Amino acid sequence: MRKIHVIGIGAGDPDQLTLQAVKALRSTDVFFLLDKGEVKSDLTQLRRDMVEAHRPEGGYRVVEARDPERDRRAGGAAYSPAVEDWRSARAGIYERLIAEELGEDGTGAFLVWGDPSLYDSTLGILEEVLERGAVEFAYDVVPGISSVSSLVARHRTGLNRVARPVQITTGRRLAEGFPEGVDDVVVMLDAHQTFRKYAEDDIDIYWGAYLGTPDEILVSGPLAEAGPRIERLRAEARERKGWIMDTYLLRRHPGPGEA
Amino acid sequence: MRKIHVIGIGAGDPDQLTLQAVKALRSTDVFFLLDKGEVKSDLTQLRRDMVEAHRPEGGYRVVEARDPERDRRAGGAAYSPAVEDWRSARAGIYERLIAEELGEDGTGAFLVWGDPSLYDSTLGILEEVLERGAVEFAYDVVPGISSVSSLVARHRTGLNRVARPVQITTGRRLAEGFPEGVDDVVVMLDAHQTFRKYAEDDIDIYWGAYLGTPDEILVSGPLAEAGPRIERLRAEARERKGWIMDTYLLRRHPGPGEA
Repeated sequence: MRKIHVIGIGAGDPDQLTLQAVKALRSTDVFFLLDKGEVKSDLTQLRRDMVEAHRPEGGYRVVEARDPERDRRAGGAAYSPAVEDWRSARAGIYERLIAEELGEDGTGAFLVWGDPSLYDSTLGILEEVLERGAVEFAYDVVPGISSVSSLVARHRTGLNRVARPVQITTGRRLAEGFPEGVDDVVVMLDAHQTFRKYAEDDIDIYWGAYLGTPDEILVSGPLAEAGPRIERLRAEARERKGWIMDTYLLRRHPGPGEA
Repeated sequence: MRKIHVIGIGAGDPDQLTLQAVKALRSTDVFFLLDKGEVKSDLTQLRRDMVEAHRPEGGYRVVEARDPERDRRAGGAAYSPAVEDWRSARAGIYERLIAEELGEDGTGAFLVWGDPSLYDSTLGILEEVLERGAVEFAYDVVPGISSVSSLVARHRTGLNRVARPVQITTGRRLAEGFPEGVDDVVVMLDAHQTFRKYAEDDIDIYWGAYLGTPDEILVSGPLAEAGPRIERLRAEARERKGWIMDTYLLRRHPGPGEA
């Protein structure tokens, strides 16, 4: 029976690997590195470096494949079908990789940035591959340090305030309104700096880009002051490197009588 | 200048330590182990074992102290003052530990279960100690695998569904109502199995106790069926071990037209 490890490898710092992740890396025959295109080839190299660091004696193979880009032009009502087509295309690729590149008793691994449970599609795709029924395998999940944990650790702050909730959401959702019932909101996958919409509110922002890497940038402070600085730094960094991965926490101060 | 590491040590499995956490453990002179009473002495021993595993050559000290219990009888309006008194008492203990047990150029460490950013008071207390001004130190935070990440990894599911938000909250908050605007909710610090309140709803539960330890228990399924089973297993385990640490994800299926 084929085996697959889905390994969370942390937010960028190779020292965020857990001992469990290192053991999983060391028991892997074939690493599948999915690449979203040239702009993110830095990220592929970082994963290759991690594998090499923990497998100095060799004895494994690396298989790279192109992960199809989602059609991001399709917005609104077309959002779900575009996502479905894309997931289906990816399932086909994963199925082929597992069936053709992994021996029947082999162990493969997918290395996932951050934690595989948070805004990552690998688990959903593997379930889809199993449902298609063309290839069988067992799989396990190795949790990783998410960019969310990494962000707040670097800012030395908590995710939640005492006895209060925290929500993790997307830029797209934040654009629809500040989530109800929470004052601490982590925003991921925001290409449009949606925090600008709330610049008039009494909110602190804790922002970070390229967390845990030598390019790391951190900014925190009241949104009205920190926001414009983040916009400038983000545009400069994106121009310089060709891509950016960033996330942020918004911490709203309740008005009088709302606490 | 004194230095302090606040180290997230994962949810229970010693292999959830990150390489960064191991490096921090290895650069520590004095480990502060705070114990909430005899029922949790198992947890103190697990931390001692982790330190010993990564410091076989010795050269460090372990200082144990009793963490004052919060007065949990105070509910409702009295909740916040009780929390404040308790934080202040804890700040006094932490201040004394750092001032008296750590040399002026020494490095201390607090080992925090899970991730220090999630429902843990260590960072808040250290800030309070610094504000009091009696002892100076620098500190950093090493993120850890939270019980939340650990839970969903063991259940091999995601925290969020595609492009949707997730909220992390407490049993106390869940008792007030299902959070608005989210269908995926992780519940921590729930001593009262508040999920029972939602047994009539179309909700799946993913529950785990003693995650990552040999005592681990996992149950998942529709809440109406899995809920009673969880209640029984939880009561038995708590009786047997004297304490329980558990958490769960509720995943609500939107009704027709609500998706």
